[in-house]
Amino acid sequence: MSANQNQVTLIGLGTIGISMAALHLRDPNSTIHLFDVRSDIEQHILAHLPAFLESVCPGTSVESLISSGRIKIHTTIETACSEATIIQEQGPENVSFKKSLWAQVESIAPPYAHFWSSTSGIPTSEQTADMQDKSRLLVVHPFNPPHIMPLLEIVPSPNTNQDEVDFACTYFRQVSPRHCPVVIKKEICGFVGNRLAFAVLREACYLVEQKVVSVKDLDQIMMSSLGPRWALNGVFESYNSGGGVDGFRGFLNKLEATVQGVWNDLGVMSMTGDDSHWKEYVISQTEQTYGPSSLGQTREKEEKLREVQRIQTSNP
Amino acid sequence: MSANQNQVTLIGLGTIGISMAALHLRDPNSTIHLFDVRSDIEQHILAHLPAFLESVCPGTSVESLISSGRIKIHTTIETACSEATIIQEQGPENVSFKKSLWAQVESIAPPYAHFWSSTSGIPTSEQTADMQDKSRLLVVHPFNPPHIMPLLEIVPSPNTNQDEVDFACTYFRQVSPRHCPVVIKKEICGFVGNRLAFAVLREACYLVEQKVVSVKDLDQIMMSSLGPRWALNGVFESYNSGGGVDGFRGFLNKLEATVQGVWNDLGVMSMTGDDSHWKEYVISQTEQTYGPSSLGQTREKEEKLREVQRIQTSNP
Repeated sequence: MSANQNQVTLIGLGTIGISMAALHLRDPNSTIHLFDVRSDIEQHILAHLPAFLESVCPGTSVESLISSGRIKIHTTIETACSEATIIQEQGPENVSFKKSLWAQVESIAPPYAHFWSSTSGIPTSEQTADMQDKSRLLVVHPFNPPHIMPLLEIVPSPNTNQDEVDFACTYFRQVSPRHCPVVIKKEICGFVGNRLAFAVLREACYLVEQKVVSVKDLDQIMMSSLGPRWALNGVFESYNSGGGVDGFRGFLNKLEATVQGVWNDLGVMSMTGDDSHWKEYVISQTEQTYGPSSLGQTREKEEKLREVQRIQTSNP
Repeated sequence: MSANQNQVTLIGLGTIGISMAALHLRDPNSTIHLFDVRSDIEQHILAHLPAFLESVCPGTSVESLISSGRIKIHTTIETACSEATIIQEQGPENVSFKKSLWAQVESIAPPYAHFWSSTSGIPTSEQTADMQDKSRLLVVHPFNPPHIMPLLEIVPSPNTNQDEVDFACTYFRQVSPRHCPVVIKKEICGFVGNRLAFAVLREACYLVEQKVVSVKDLDQIMMSSLGPRWALNGVFESYNSGGGVDGFRGFLNKLEATVQGVWNDLGVMSMTGDDSHWKEYVISQTEQTYGPSSLGQTREKEEKLREVQRIQTSNP
């Protein structure tokens, strides 16, 4: 496959969709077709895409990308999809929306177009329910913001053609060497990244609710130990190193009782019902600690993210 | 308090103890007293301390630190403790050992000496059981390697004097501006950092055992998303930013069903008994993926850790 023939259609242009457009624009030869049901789509793109373009093609204006034909804005899904080689949706997280969207897209898109969903939670196999050909769709789950965060979880269903999996991985590696597609071998609730994240979130909420630690101190603990370690080594390699010559086996054997003790004691939290009173306490403390984040803070953190990525990939 | 009058006694000189010695040596005016029950203590220190010194006082030899009196090596606990202002133990993770150690230390140390345990799991209140004065001891839980990893979890018992908590925090901030003492408000199994870490470890082992993802891909997922994010923002600030103008509240409201779905579905694993067959599978895959880590790899990762720390504290 050659990335320079791609006609990429993005459906749904919220924050993730706009950032995803910036990611696809890294390929200088592709055409990006944009569609959203909002009536002010052009103004919306002109207002929000520039902040995401800075790190992708600095100095380039959205207007010039439109006038040169690299970005095409569509007011109907039919024209948006008619020439597409790739169609990626970032629409509402709603099974019935996605089911009917893909059935419609299948009926209007070229037969060679690849279908990708940016969902963070709805498996491919649910989204394909009303499709004729269930082999064309897969999930490409990005992390926010997609044009900077390297991870893309590629999650096929059992019906997805292996060629589709290979194409998605090859495409993202070509478009952005910084990005990192990882294939998830089985469909599972939350995929992998968010399962790990929400396991931490649950315990973090529990420890704050139990008044063991404040929101600010918990974040400080994460930033001054686990975060940097996991940024450089991941989970298993960290413990394999920590176990010395005996590796991960040595670590587990040495700390078996401590690890089991913690596992037995981890908090169990509920988002709804009588057991959800903790939410207001933890939310309020987070709001008091941080307040709303400014665009300036967000840009600063994104720049630091890029610096961490440079360290991750640098040679000693 | 003035850090330059400190006589710091370290009891137990395994990897953590040696690295802790390097951390305390950052204070150029303190004297470090080293004691371990091993018979080859001087050879052991000469063999292992140099690698840790490089980043703390480059170009300085252990021999010169001994001859100048900055390091004093002791063969009895009585002489090691006799002049101490701070006594920190890194002995075996064994309640009866620590109980009897502190009772002995209390009987031989000056009345003004501060008592710290580097335990990763045994609470202060258990360690003080046989002490006359239970107000002097607290846990100072470091992360490996302590001379580089900034976090120190300061965990008092309900009996610990608040002045002892304040002294420990002030001491470490003075000795190393890079280090970050955080006070844990309640004694709890695993303290905070390891509870978060082991929550991730459990789910990571579950996802590998379920063949959703390989060891290598799980580490890649962590390194290309959550690790860098948590290195820069921690858990709550990350989700507060991710929620946009509605902050953490907006995030929880929007993703409530997805988060609850994942929480309901998280793996439950056991370290022992009939349910522990997963261990050999996950350990073997980790060993095949990484093998034993070399000293060179460890040093390289430590240098990268320092670079990440520079980014964390840099101004835009």
